[in-house]
Amino acid sequence: MRYFEDLQVGAETEFGTYDVTRQEILEFARKYDPQPFHLSDEAAAETHFGRLCASGWHTCAMTMAVLARYAVKHKQAGLGSPGIDELRWLKPVYPGDTLRVHGRIVDKTPSRSRPDIGSYRTETIVTNQDGVPVMRFTSIVLIRRRPEEAAAG
Amino acid sequence: MRYFEDLQVGAETEFGTYDVTRQEILEFARKYDPQPFHLSDEAAAETHFGRLCASGWHTCAMTMAVLARYAVKHKQAGLGSPGIDELRWLKPVYPGDTLRVHGRIVDKTPSRSRPDIGSYRTETIVTNQDGVPVMRFTSIVLIRRRPEEAAAG
Repeated sequence: MRYFEDLQVGAETEFGTYDVTRQEILEFARKYDPQPFHLSDEAAAETHFGRLCASGWHTCAMTMAVLARYAVKHKQAGLGSPGIDELRWLKPVYPGDTLRVHGRIVDKTPSRSRPDIGSYRTETIVTNQDGVPVMRFTSIVLIRRRPEEAAAG
Repeated sequence: MRYFEDLQVGAETEFGTYDVTRQEILEFARKYDPQPFHLSDEAAAETHFGRLCASGWHTCAMTMAVLARYAVKHKQAGLGSPGIDELRWLKPVYPGDTLRVHGRIVDKTPSRSRPDIGSYRTETIVTNQDGVPVMRFTSIVLIRRRPEEAAAG
């Protein structure tokens, strides 16, 4: 299990990739973001998007899929997130794109109120197959402390 | 069609509600956020969540569903969003909850580079059926200017 004590500030990680399909863009948009430019090329052509593109929230979800699979595979003792700062959708995400998720640990802080947990902040950058950043955000993540460290206060 | 010129700074809107089901929580988590506390009551019982709760990104998606349906119904000339600031997941969202989405326009700004569009910021607060805030964020939204206003510069 990877705990708070195992995190190195400044460490960078390649979390993996996600292939974006037209069908999944449409399914997500119909359910959660039925704005015209997320539903058809024709409607998107009338906007700066140019053609069908993914909902920004779908890009978040696909990014989380990459992050969560990594965390589960590496048995990270995560406890969810209280929030996100400065989320920016920098470029549209199109059908056929492959997203690549990169992260860097910005800082980490033991909890003042709970000796068994800590938090850390990571800057996540998502690029497409051309290396162009399409999204970035800073997330705050809660994680368990190593049991013996927590017991030692 | 509702344009930039129709937006009133300080205006508050009730966008609607969304009923959260266990099945949808599980479907979203399996696809996008397979952390144990989003997959079973048993795993969640070992965390501060207490029981199965929705992925925070799922709460974002459900909130967007309410916002997007409102925007489409009211023919708002939206052009997507460049980003989100200070997103906070304040309380867990559980199966059976009903989310209520409330928004307030913080400010609005004509584009300096493109006379046909403007942007505005809204503070979105999502509460559950007990009136408890479960999520808030500030979003930046792009919107078309009324054609005659844009032409007048």
